[in-house]
Amino acid sequence: MSKLLIIGGSDAGISAALRARELDATWEVTVVVEDAFPNYSICGLPFYLSGEVPAYQQLAHRTHAELSAAGISLLLNHQARAIEPDAHEVVVWEATHPARRLPYDRLLIATGARSRRPRFPGIDVPGVFLLHSMQDSFAMQRFLSEHAPRSAVIVGGGYIGLEMVDALTLRGIAVTLVEHGPSVLKTIDPHLGARVRTHLEQHGVVVETGIRVQQITAQQKQLRISGTEGFEVATDLVLVAVGVEPRVELAQAIGAELGTQGAIRVSRSMETSLPDIVAAGDCVETWHRLLTRPTYLPLGTTAHKQGRIAGETAIGRSARFAGTLGTQVVKVFDLVVARTGLREDEARAAGFDSLTTAGTYLDHKGYYPGAQSVQMLLSGDRTTGRLLGAQMVGPVQTEVAKRIDVVATALFHDMTVEALSDLDLSYTPPLGSPWDLVQMGAHAWSALASGNISTSLVHAHDSRLFQKP
Amino acid sequence: MSKLLIIGGSDAGISAALRARELDATWEVTVVVEDAFPNYSICGLPFYLSGEVPAYQQLAHRTHAELSAAGISLLLNHQARAIEPDAHEVVVWEATHPARRLPYDRLLIATGARSRRPRFPGIDVPGVFLLHSMQDSFAMQRFLSEHAPRSAVIVGGGYIGLEMVDALTLRGIAVTLVEHGPSVLKTIDPHLGARVRTHLEQHGVVVETGIRVQQITAQQKQLRISGTEGFEVATDLVLVAVGVEPRVELAQAIGAELGTQGAIRVSRSMETSLPDIVAAGDCVETWHRLLTRPTYLPLGTTAHKQGRIAGETAIGRSARFAGTLGTQVVKVFDLVVARTGLREDEARAAGFDSLTTAGTYLDHKGYYPGAQSVQMLLSGDRTTGRLLGAQMVGPVQTEVAKRIDVVATALFHDMTVEALSDLDLSYTPPLGSPWDLVQMGAHAWSALASGNISTSLVHAHDSRLFQKP
Repeated sequence: MSKLLIIGGSDAGISAALRARELDATWEVTVVVEDAFPNYSICGLPFYLSGEVPAYQQLAHRTHAELSAAGISLLLNHQARAIEPDAHEVVVWEATHPARRLPYDRLLIATGARSRRPRFPGIDVPGVFLLHSMQDSFAMQRFLSEHAPRSAVIVGGGYIGLEMVDALTLRGIAVTLVEHGPSVLKTIDPHLGARVRTHLEQHGVVVETGIRVQQITAQQKQLRISGTEGFEVATDLVLVAVGVEPRVELAQAIGAELGTQGAIRVSRSMETSLPDIVAAGDCVETWHRLLTRPTYLPLGTTAHKQGRIAGETAIGRSARFAGTLGTQVVKVFDLVVARTGLREDEARAAGFDSLTTAGTYLDHKGYYPGAQSVQMLLSGDRTTGRLLGAQMVGPVQTEVAKRIDVVATALFHDMTVEALSDLDLSYTPPLGSPWDLVQMGAHAWSALASGNISTSLVHAHDSRLFQKP
Repeated sequence: MSKLLIIGGSDAGISAALRARELDATWEVTVVVEDAFPNYSICGLPFYLSGEVPAYQQLAHRTHAELSAAGISLLLNHQARAIEPDAHEVVVWEATHPARRLPYDRLLIATGARSRRPRFPGIDVPGVFLLHSMQDSFAMQRFLSEHAPRSAVIVGGGYIGLEMVDALTLRGIAVTLVEHGPSVLKTIDPHLGARVRTHLEQHGVVVETGIRVQQITAQQKQLRISGTEGFEVATDLVLVAVGVEPRVELAQAIGAELGTQGAIRVSRSMETSLPDIVAAGDCVETWHRLLTRPTYLPLGTTAHKQGRIAGETAIGRSARFAGTLGTQVVKVFDLVVARTGLREDEARAAGFDSLTTAGTYLDHKGYYPGAQSVQMLLSGDRTTGRLLGAQMVGPVQTEVAKRIDVVATALFHDMTVEALSDLDLSYTPPLGSPWDLVQMGAHAWSALASGNISTSLVHAHDSRLFQKP
């Protein structure tokens, strides 16, 4: 029997294992997992820490028994220490046991990412946390239970930072969010980031932007965190969530080529530069479908897709990663923020003749109770008419996550903005409009692109049209 | 100035008028409206009758003033009685005034549809209603106010019938729904229709299927309605909602070709068989993108799209209707029912080698509170792999209307079922899964199509996989 060995038991590793076994059950598939938590949903950690998910075991996408039933062997609490490509072996350690050598015919490196760890003094003081692994979340959970903190500072206004703002506020903790950029959630336009900030403030969160944290010190029973612009706060807990970086040490040690942002370079089939070794997930580059070049965008959805492709490639099938569009969504309190494709500035940097329209649209017909506003930015190329991206912010009920998915599906097919009007989308007054708001946005964009801005009447009642400054 | 004359002031007529004026303001655009309610949302009538929309005026998509500001002349309460193609004139009547002749360079027929009126005795008895026009809704509203009916029978379990079941139940009226077919909402698979039926019954609605109404008689202060299978009920009000038929008399009188189900035959550019006369909306055939032939599918979304194309064609631009996919959605109480593309039986009748999988999926990660089940049928062609359609039923919070839109966008681009996995859809645990349920359904379909049904573990926790009998 041929052996597929997988280093890493999170999204990419397990997806690859399942796909390989699904397609060809003659492969012996072994997954080396560094902790006791294979196939756990890392994206679920904030909801465990908020108390919404009472038991951490619920975070498992699948149980150990289910994975075994699929014919996957799991080596839990095993650390892969070295790859020996010539021998086709991996050296693994398990606690105090002697090192073992595991042979492979094909190897998948799915070592994921780790939290970025800023260098300022005090990052190691007790009460200061990072959040990426199950162990991280256990440590924080224990602190929350034992110390019942009443205040917290979260450093970093990205996805995890915002979800943790929500989570800790839900626990009754007074939260201050510190972001070094000029607005929160820098993956979206500052124009929309401002709405997110207002929403945070309405939920009692103190938001400090434009501040770089410089130091944390223990002070009696509290922590003192200080930064630029005279920022100084006493708090009970600090969470540092300033992004992640790929874990590439094993790959690097054997000379695998690295690419964008130090992630492992892979082909569209997830092959590394070394024979018989594929890689996938948060440790590798991500092909971007619009930029037509690799980028680094570590997301669970992408890890699943890349893992699936890597599983196929590993067992000798032909498969190709279709690429990311950078589709992302986050829920913060009652607000959902979603994006797909390129932002205006990203599109311009990539050489597109980008035009972005901003509009506010009702999620469904205004006469039906409960209609709420969605703010949308829609970007297209003025020269070719090609759709380039969209961002939406709206309350949970406005279904913006799925509306972004419609745009993502359109982007996948290189549609023009104009052609969005041709899509046969569903309509009933409680849930939409005869032209869905995506299509109203497309009309507005076309009107602006062609100079017909007087035609905003077409969108009367449901939108206001204005050009981004 | 060239003159565009439009007969009909509903979705298609007004969309055409707006589009023509948007593209070329030198055209003089006049719309002949038979009542005083141009550009009203007919789809909103059930919500007016439920009391959710307190004032009927709210149902206007745009006000008279807004339409005038767009340069559109409205002739309200005018009836078009005849078209004289040789003279390029339309004869209109306004109450007791003498007939007028309106000249045109281009004419748009957008006369819409009317309620189908069954022939059984008693259809004209007071207390029996049809529902398609504003006048219909006023008559019914008056009856509801003056007679405060305590019970109602709704004949017809289609979209309008179900929305009115919801509306009248909300008013505290005990509703019986009578449907001649074997299940409610025959636009979806009976398998899903059964879930809708259960939902209706949970809301206190009596559902009678397989019954053809034969007679209604006035009996003291009530109505007695009887049908096949010994059906007989005394009730205070009857609504007959058994579909619509195209209004084609004006077009037929001048020899315009008719097509499917007696609707006006039109080209993809919305031209009729007669020179200088276009037609759009509920009075015309609808090009079906999957069937690649005309069908009759009168929907507001389609009327808007066709109107827009007709407006362009009328003023000499080149435009082409992309076609319908039959995308539809209805909300009944707390349940949303959505479909796009072809049902298994429709696909087979059209010559596709259709395979349909049925599954139940959680709308978001099970560990996050509030996850609810969505039932989905997914159809594809076993020979070519091509996606053919989907149907979904789930509570409002499961966002199935927009998930159907993702499938509709995929169908628009002739995707294979397999390729759905490549779509970069959004994910956050409160709103979805790393593979959205559409993609889980695609995996299930592929597994079944390739005979790998043992692989249902891939979907563990989130789905159950079974083949439709």
